[in-house]
Amino acid sequence: MKIDIITVVPELLESPLSHSIMKRAREKGLLEVNLHNLRKWAINKYGQVDDYQYGGGAGMVMMCEPLVNAIEELQKDTSYDEIIYMTPDGGTFNQRTANNLSLKENVLIICGHYKGIDQRIRDHYVTMEISIGDYVLSGGELAAAVVVDAVGRLLPGVLNDETSALTDSFQDNLLAPPVYTRPENFNGWEVPAVLLSGDPKKVDQWRYEQSLANTRLRRPDLLKDDL
Amino acid sequence: MKIDIITVVPELLESPLSHSIMKRAREKGLLEVNLHNLRKWAINKYGQVDDYQYGGGAGMVMMCEPLVNAIEELQKDTSYDEIIYMTPDGGTFNQRTANNLSLKENVLIICGHYKGIDQRIRDHYVTMEISIGDYVLSGGELAAAVVVDAVGRLLPGVLNDETSALTDSFQDNLLAPPVYTRPENFNGWEVPAVLLSGDPKKVDQWRYEQSLANTRLRRPDLLKDDL
Repeated sequence: MKIDIITVVPELLESPLSHSIMKRAREKGLLEVNLHNLRKWAINKYGQVDDYQYGGGAGMVMMCEPLVNAIEELQKDTSYDEIIYMTPDGGTFNQRTANNLSLKENVLIICGHYKGIDQRIRDHYVTMEISIGDYVLSGGELAAAVVVDAVGRLLPGVLNDETSALTDSFQDNLLAPPVYTRPENFNGWEVPAVLLSGDPKKVDQWRYEQSLANTRLRRPDLLKDDL
Repeated sequence: MKIDIITVVPELLESPLSHSIMKRAREKGLLEVNLHNLRKWAINKYGQVDDYQYGGGAGMVMMCEPLVNAIEELQKDTSYDEIIYMTPDGGTFNQRTANNLSLKENVLIICGHYKGIDQRIRDHYVTMEISIGDYVLSGGELAAAVVVDAVGRLLPGVLNDETSALTDSFQDNLLAPPVYTRPENFNGWEVPAVLLSGDPKKVDQWRYEQSLANTRLRRPDLLKDDL
């Protein structure tokens, strides 16, 4: 899978994409991520890519021209399955979106910054708008990193043990059960006996019950989605 | 505001916290963020901080001992308003949570990695569990970066123009209106005439209507929250 990212602060994305599981995915050649600095397509030698918003008000808006030139130049080499704009008023990202995106071959992500991008780019170029949650960030870069991570780890071969992703929260609309590791007794706090029973059936049953109880208590809305 | 972060991959967090608005917040002394490598409190010279989970199954679990030692050592210097664990089954982060957290003085964030942390830490130390959305990430680090960014930008003096955050999406349960910048005509696509009218009342009215229409179309659930 190839993900191209257009941003005004590519350096912000460097460390999240070059450590841990994303590093492994890229080294294995399973995920290619390219950062494109929008200033390469700036409208003047001062690197201008934004301007004041029409109608007045605080916050700069990213201009049409640099974005269109960036998108069209990248499209010469790659036919994108999706051109995604990261924005708080986009569709809310969830595990289903992550699963769907992990099946795509080429994705272009545009990171907004300041007040966002000129609406005309959204109207005429963007095919998908994603919000990672109901909160506002300084820019789309961290949101893009979240999407790349959530999607990248689903690519076959990225995680060491394929079952590891399948038992995560949300894959079956249930939250994960509690987990414990050594020692059995810490500060007088004990691991539930069933986990030490050595009986895989009992363990599975307990985990399922805990998942269900956890979900009912904390996120009953997830259970409703399924019905 | 001071945010301490416990993580096994502090290097992953470096670039998001040292560019753009987070950089400015830290340079101005408005936000202090300290990364603490959990391996400093590893149980042996191999740097071990995790172990297999009781009951079997894929994925390692972060052990009690290093976490307790880390938390208690940090608590010697700081009395935390919240000890937050980033986890997909936590309470869903939103702008209200960001606003509330921005009023705290000292916050400790624990980033899970692998399968998560031993449940006993959640039961006995953690005071708040946060999920940034219904999807699974490789670890809590990006989620912590998102929280730090969303909260940090709300601290008075961090953004250049205070009104900039107040007109963002979600601050009043409405999505932001569309934004436009120069030129008026790009590729034959024109900026809405009202924004060029020079009449601030008309502009405000149009923006409010667009916000409301946008929210009704894309996120009717936000409007219900208010009633």
